[in-house]
Amino acid sequence: MTDVAAPVDCTASILAVGSELLGTTRLDTNSLFLAGELLTMGVRVVRKACVGDDAGDLGAELRVALGRAPLLVASGGLGPTADDRTKEVLAALLGRPLVRDEAILSRLRERFRRRGIEMPKVNEKQADVIEGAVVLANPRGSAPGFLVEAAGKTVVLLPGVPDELKAMWVEDAGPRLARVYGTTGYHRRTLKVGGLPESVVEERVEPVYAAHPDCPITILAAGGEVQLQFAVRGTPEEAGAALDRIERDFRKALGSDVFGRNDETLEGVVGDLLRARGLTLALAESCTGGLLAGRLTDVAGSSDYFLGSAVTYANAAKADLVGVSEETLERFGAVSEETAREMAFGARKRFGASVGVAVTGIAGPGGGSPEKPAGTVHLALDAADGTRGHRKLLMPGGRALVRRWTTSAALVMIRHYLMGRTEGGRK
Amino acid sequence: MTDVAAPVDCTASILAVGSELLGTTRLDTNSLFLAGELLTMGVRVVRKACVGDDAGDLGAELRVALGRAPLLVASGGLGPTADDRTKEVLAALLGRPLVRDEAILSRLRERFRRRGIEMPKVNEKQADVIEGAVVLANPRGSAPGFLVEAAGKTVVLLPGVPDELKAMWVEDAGPRLARVYGTTGYHRRTLKVGGLPESVVEERVEPVYAAHPDCPITILAAGGEVQLQFAVRGTPEEAGAALDRIERDFRKALGSDVFGRNDETLEGVVGDLLRARGLTLALAESCTGGLLAGRLTDVAGSSDYFLGSAVTYANAAKADLVGVSEETLERFGAVSEETAREMAFGARKRFGASVGVAVTGIAGPGGGSPEKPAGTVHLALDAADGTRGHRKLLMPGGRALVRRWTTSAALVMIRHYLMGRTEGGRK
Repeated sequence: MTDVAAPVDCTASILAVGSELLGTTRLDTNSLFLAGELLTMGVRVVRKACVGDDAGDLGAELRVALGRAPLLVASGGLGPTADDRTKEVLAALLGRPLVRDEAILSRLRERFRRRGIEMPKVNEKQADVIEGAVVLANPRGSAPGFLVEAAGKTVVLLPGVPDELKAMWVEDAGPRLARVYGTTGYHRRTLKVGGLPESVVEERVEPVYAAHPDCPITILAAGGEVQLQFAVRGTPEEAGAALDRIERDFRKALGSDVFGRNDETLEGVVGDLLRARGLTLALAESCTGGLLAGRLTDVAGSSDYFLGSAVTYANAAKADLVGVSEETLERFGAVSEETAREMAFGARKRFGASVGVAVTGIAGPGGGSPEKPAGTVHLALDAADGTRGHRKLLMPGGRALVRRWTTSAALVMIRHYLMGRTEGGRK
Repeated sequence: MTDVAAPVDCTASILAVGSELLGTTRLDTNSLFLAGELLTMGVRVVRKACVGDDAGDLGAELRVALGRAPLLVASGGLGPTADDRTKEVLAALLGRPLVRDEAILSRLRERFRRRGIEMPKVNEKQADVIEGAVVLANPRGSAPGFLVEAAGKTVVLLPGVPDELKAMWVEDAGPRLARVYGTTGYHRRTLKVGGLPESVVEERVEPVYAAHPDCPITILAAGGEVQLQFAVRGTPEEAGAALDRIERDFRKALGSDVFGRNDETLEGVVGDLLRARGLTLALAESCTGGLLAGRLTDVAGSSDYFLGSAVTYANAAKADLVGVSEETLERFGAVSEETAREMAFGARKRFGASVGVAVTGIAGPGGGSPEKPAGTVHLALDAADGTRGHRKLLMPGGRALVRRWTTSAALVMIRHYLMGRTEGGRK
């Protein structure tokens, strides 16, 4: 670490404006993005609130928010309709007039003209600016944003539409605030772990926690993978280097069970490995009913390596499409190691793939028995190089969770094969 | 309508407590449930806020919330750790002592004993009750909730874990509040429409809006379906009758394009129709890559009617698994009406199903051409009764949207066939 002075510890408050946010369907998701962006500047969100369009309510919330933190980021209520009055209410609260800005007005008119429409009269008020405010450009919509400084407080007004809010933040509001607050804040990284339960990950990373006592580390389990989120305070360069050191320690503790970082997905990582190795993949799915194929084909360009899946929900289809023998189905049942292995072999042969992978199980809630309770799943892998693998899972949770977790476990199995690690294997 | 007096117009404020709610990953989803429940009592949420575990911050937020509405529903911070202090901070704010409740204490001890664990010392504080508060039972966890009345205000404290919060609301807090506020509030209903764009739905339901000017109606488009949400104020019985009348008008305007209500799903409705008609279904999927089969098998018990899907991502698989002719692939291409029709026929034959449905298209972002841009999809249906159908779609939006909308369009096509309406058909 260099001797850069620690940044001032700053706090912010977030306010989302719109009556729809007080109902039964919509949440203010913008606050997640804003909280992360503020953290990189060393600014901690201490409260969030949502309020409707009523001017009295809105004024009260603006007053409360300004009393609680020196920075307020508010979104919504900048549109052209009578319901949109965030700017008007803030101006009244600060005792500042609204001034029509001719440059904004002609940009707005031009925007409508390009779409072949004359600008409705109501849009004119979007050209009104709180006296002394910095106008923030909206590359994605008509409502400009504002940055207002008054009585030691800073207020940023952004549009509520997520795409517009993000673009305005990234291109204009964020850089302006960074010039004030700096970027010596918390820079975050996420590592993703596949194929290990949360408790095992937690045990293995214990020494990493101990080695970095000042680093806030969060462990989260979701959808059959475990995420390690950590943050380091500093300039982007300092923090990047420190994050690299922590990542190295995590990878030392977890080895190749770490499959990715930040936005990387298990299906994307598996796809990249298949492409890099010049291999193709085919599936036979029963209890996942196509969801495993669905995840693999979420990745654009997956037709480079993914050939297809035989979703054999009915037993007759297991026999007909991927050649599971009647005897195996009869003797061991559809949910068995033997059936899974024959399905994997059959899928590979049927599609002419390098690797065949099969899933058969009981997603529940019905269909279980004392020997094979709901949540029992067999995975098998059969590769042209002679590798064979099998794993039996027993998962708690409802139908949706069992199905999701099974797809993750299958992707981990494929990844392990591609990295030369195969469980339950024989060659 | 009977002459029941209009309910008093009441307002409430919602507060979620927990530092994790101020970060980059978690939102307070409980507020959506609470807003709906309060509406049925005629109570309108006028603000929501989230605050961290800091006692000073929490006290400030409780004070603000109590100043803004006569009812406050707060969740979180009732656990056993030092971070959990909602109850303590509220007690201090109201100037009321905490009193240890021996009955709660022994229930807590018993709860641990049943799990074979001795109760940790820290849990004892969960038996402390704000003097004069009503204790709310927690059927799903250890933290009891509280209902406190003070100085004309009512505060309900609930646990933050969604399952615990819902169970406590439904079984205890909700009925208690209903005795005060009544149930003459807004009762809601949702109708779901498939296969029509939002603008067409809006045009068709215009007369329904006009016929019910006082009924708040929301129209929402998501994932290839359109939802109409509406609410009526009154007792549950009155409101139920009025909702039925409005639903009848919507159904008159939209006919059989209304596929369901409230929690019903397109895949569930299609499954019920297949089961009722004693028919079986098989698929051949290309661009949806298994997602259509995935949706159909999300429904527990779908093995009654769903036989399987040939996910034929590669062209060779289209020929081999479902018998699309090389000539058709060559002459018309994989994304064509002809290929879709042969896939549907082949899927029906291959799985021995009553109905075969096929999807082939370009999900994008790559793979498009001027004649067949990304978003071009062909759907086909081939039934044992001789019905044949085809639809061509051209969808805007990214890969994920195109894939999701395609599955909805295919489910609508299956539903139409099962109801005797087949587009692009020949028999």
